[in-house]
Amino acid sequence: MFSGTAYTQLTESLRRVHALGSVGELLSWDEQVNLPPGAAEQRAAQQAALAGAIHAAASDARIGGWLAELEKALASLDDDQRAVVRNARRDYDRATKLPADFVREKAAQGSRGYHAWAKAKAADNFADYAPVLERNLALSKREAGYLGWEGREYDYMIDRHDPGMNAAAIGRLFDELKRELVPLGRSIAQSPVRPRPEILRGFPVEGQRTFLREVTARLGFDYDRGRIDVSLHPFCTGTGSDVRMTTRFKEDEPLDSLFSAIHETGHGLYEQGLSPPDLGTALGIHAGMAVHESQSRLWENQVARSRGFWRCFEPRFRGMFPTQVAGVSSEDLHLAINAVAPTLIRVDADEVTYNLHIILRFELEKKLFAGELRVDRLPSAWRDSAQALLGLTPPTDREGVLQDVHWSDGSFGYFPSYCLGNMLAAQLWYRILQLRPSLEEDFTRGDFTWLLAWLRENIHAQGRRFDLLTLTRRVTGEELSPRHLVRYLRERYGPLYRI
Amino acid sequence: MFSGTAYTQLTESLRRVHALGSVGELLSWDEQVNLPPGAAEQRAAQQAALAGAIHAAASDARIGGWLAELEKALASLDDDQRAVVRNARRDYDRATKLPADFVREKAAQGSRGYHAWAKAKAADNFADYAPVLERNLALSKREAGYLGWEGREYDYMIDRHDPGMNAAAIGRLFDELKRELVPLGRSIAQSPVRPRPEILRGFPVEGQRTFLREVTARLGFDYDRGRIDVSLHPFCTGTGSDVRMTTRFKEDEPLDSLFSAIHETGHGLYEQGLSPPDLGTALGIHAGMAVHESQSRLWENQVARSRGFWRCFEPRFRGMFPTQVAGVSSEDLHLAINAVAPTLIRVDADEVTYNLHIILRFELEKKLFAGELRVDRLPSAWRDSAQALLGLTPPTDREGVLQDVHWSDGSFGYFPSYCLGNMLAAQLWYRILQLRPSLEEDFTRGDFTWLLAWLRENIHAQGRRFDLLTLTRRVTGEELSPRHLVRYLRERYGPLYRI
Repeated sequence: MFSGTAYTQLTESLRRVHALGSVGELLSWDEQVNLPPGAAEQRAAQQAALAGAIHAAASDARIGGWLAELEKALASLDDDQRAVVRNARRDYDRATKLPADFVREKAAQGSRGYHAWAKAKAADNFADYAPVLERNLALSKREAGYLGWEGREYDYMIDRHDPGMNAAAIGRLFDELKRELVPLGRSIAQSPVRPRPEILRGFPVEGQRTFLREVTARLGFDYDRGRIDVSLHPFCTGTGSDVRMTTRFKEDEPLDSLFSAIHETGHGLYEQGLSPPDLGTALGIHAGMAVHESQSRLWENQVARSRGFWRCFEPRFRGMFPTQVAGVSSEDLHLAINAVAPTLIRVDADEVTYNLHIILRFELEKKLFAGELRVDRLPSAWRDSAQALLGLTPPTDREGVLQDVHWSDGSFGYFPSYCLGNMLAAQLWYRILQLRPSLEEDFTRGDFTWLLAWLRENIHAQGRRFDLLTLTRRVTGEELSPRHLVRYLRERYGPLYRI
Repeated sequence: MFSGTAYTQLTESLRRVHALGSVGELLSWDEQVNLPPGAAEQRAAQQAALAGAIHAAASDARIGGWLAELEKALASLDDDQRAVVRNARRDYDRATKLPADFVREKAAQGSRGYHAWAKAKAADNFADYAPVLERNLALSKREAGYLGWEGREYDYMIDRHDPGMNAAAIGRLFDELKRELVPLGRSIAQSPVRPRPEILRGFPVEGQRTFLREVTARLGFDYDRGRIDVSLHPFCTGTGSDVRMTTRFKEDEPLDSLFSAIHETGHGLYEQGLSPPDLGTALGIHAGMAVHESQSRLWENQVARSRGFWRCFEPRFRGMFPTQVAGVSSEDLHLAINAVAPTLIRVDADEVTYNLHIILRFELEKKLFAGELRVDRLPSAWRDSAQALLGLTPPTDREGVLQDVHWSDGSFGYFPSYCLGNMLAAQLWYRILQLRPSLEEDFTRGDFTWLLAWLRENIHAQGRRFDLLTLTRRVTGEELSPRHLVRYLRERYGPLYRI
């Protein structure tokens, strides 16, 4: 192991940059959980001042000097150190290669774009939003150019979220998945079995909160190193010893808050499993959005929708809400937990059709970047795809191309991570079942320690040493593939919907 | 008004520095209100990284350049602009004149000192704490020297908290106050009237929270621009549109949480009354700790211990806690609210004897800095003073010289602000009564708007344009004097204790 001054100084500097960045995340958490309504402008000034300080720290020329020195001595570094240098170079280039004018223009456009999107969505008026998308596309391409991705602009957008991934590889995976999922979704939609989630009504918030906290603690979320609060939209932020999740409560949708919280718990367990002394370097940061999503999905879907999980928690659930579930059979409850129905809106989708929503967006993004689709043709392209993939045609753009916030600030290339995460979750699941065939019996006993320990060692503690495809190969022994997800969905939903 | 580029750039820069500083305050608030127990080390790393960023921003050489330019053109600035430049110079010198090594040494010593104090207090062992005090004294003197206060080191410590104030002026005020307060305290101690605060027992926390929120909102605290939470020790932080108070609840001490919260409300009203666009400049920052304390004390004591206040809130209090106050007469309640009894511990003291605790500390600090008292003689000097001022001798150092945290990190010169604030509160109070003789009738009707509007205009919106003595003169028409405080205490406590 190389132990020169440059490496030590580099990692100390990266830790400071990371600490400042994590302060920004805390400000955002606070904004959604605590901020007095009148303080928005003051908070924006704090975020702007902090962003300036973070940028100054991240673009410190000394970092460039240490990197140049270490890159000349790569042979004397060990694998971990090389991963640290590689990731630091990536961050440093992004901090230094974008002209300040461009960064300001993009930030301003992001804010304008958000408001334009919100207005256009409310008015169901795509024409007003189209110029925003044109500008965001142009800015994204310019950004890719500054960083040396000319001609591979959409790959750059993907690589930002999932290092090492690209559009061609995703296209192959999604094509294969689509061939299987479209007919599976159709079959379920035509099944005579009908879940009735509306049978769950009138669950007091305090009881939901208690139950949810018991469940998430049992799964392994460490409340000495994290917390859960309430916000408008559930999310998880923070890392290491200070991980903050949120959820929301609706008396007539107890499964919504529970599964949201379990999803965020999956993200939280990943972040709590990173190595605190290594925060800010490749050894102490998540591997990318797809791997992150694989963790939230695995706990939300493979674990918390399983029979074993509910054999453990159903008695407690019934004990806490005796009147609310008096007339609900175990089968009805399980079917409500696993309700599948095509919907126009991505965020309302079940775990079968959700993937089709993602494929739709990926295909449109790819065509936009390739110049094969004009922005003004997006609404009709969306409608055609929705009909082909989901069997539904949005009657308004609000339920179609205007539904998502992501593109309004130029976050192209983000959607694929959700579906890649679902694939990886299922692939991990079958690998885990090979190693631990009795896993659902663990769940029945309320014991999730084996599963968490395995994820800790094989995924969480790995940090960003490996990219998505390499990590998948190392951990599961094969290439990332959609067939595990298809198998999982068939095994779970086939019997339930009698298909 | 001078409107050159240097002034605009200076104030924009000051606003950014202030925004970063306010992020640090939010981190501290979060630490005391939200932080998971296992996250202390991670938070310390965030604070350290942020402190570095704040120092870099505050010592930016361009600030020095703009200041030099503006100081050459003072004649073309208006009064407000001159105040801004004067205060910016003060902050800039403090950010740039202390050597980096010294700042690090002081920070490390502050942390070590805190832990040494906590240990020495627990063990009641002053000898182990004495070297910390020696070192803190030496560091304070060095700091004063760097900033050009040689020979006036204690004045420097005072000026840090109350710009423009000094030890000689405080000494004259405190001597006069002491002559009156010592006999008043003795008379009350010998009074046959005995308050019985222990009659208030078993107040549910939720009810206390509701009542406290109603009261503080009625006083004028704007919950759209602030919030209240629970922490171990009550405090108030933040400014402008985001002011955060805390309190604590004990079922058997409902007056403790209520009056703590009203005290913090006084601080909060001041901060909410600063001009948000001017935050970070002398036009949008409080005038000093004594003025700050005058606001918390005025609302806590002159307002909330008054008959008028309780004529308004007693019916609601009884309505919310009918069983708890069933056997408590209005007189007993009012006496419990105004309980006076000498105590060895400052933070438990009533509003009469509290000032004597402060005078004791001021006199010892002054002698320490003048070299008239050796650190090893502090415990016996403390005991002698406590007997002379309070009529009590601490049986242990834990109840004497070891009770306060302030000196452990070198915060000398802070204590006097508390008593100066009490003086100013009383002086403002009689000025206000001259202008609004019917003020207590306002209170009886639950109307605090006249009082708040007057404080807003005359104190809050003034920012740091004037120092303590100038502000007092401008607002009350006379020099700062202890006679108003003495008059107020006599008028309130004389009849109650029949003396």
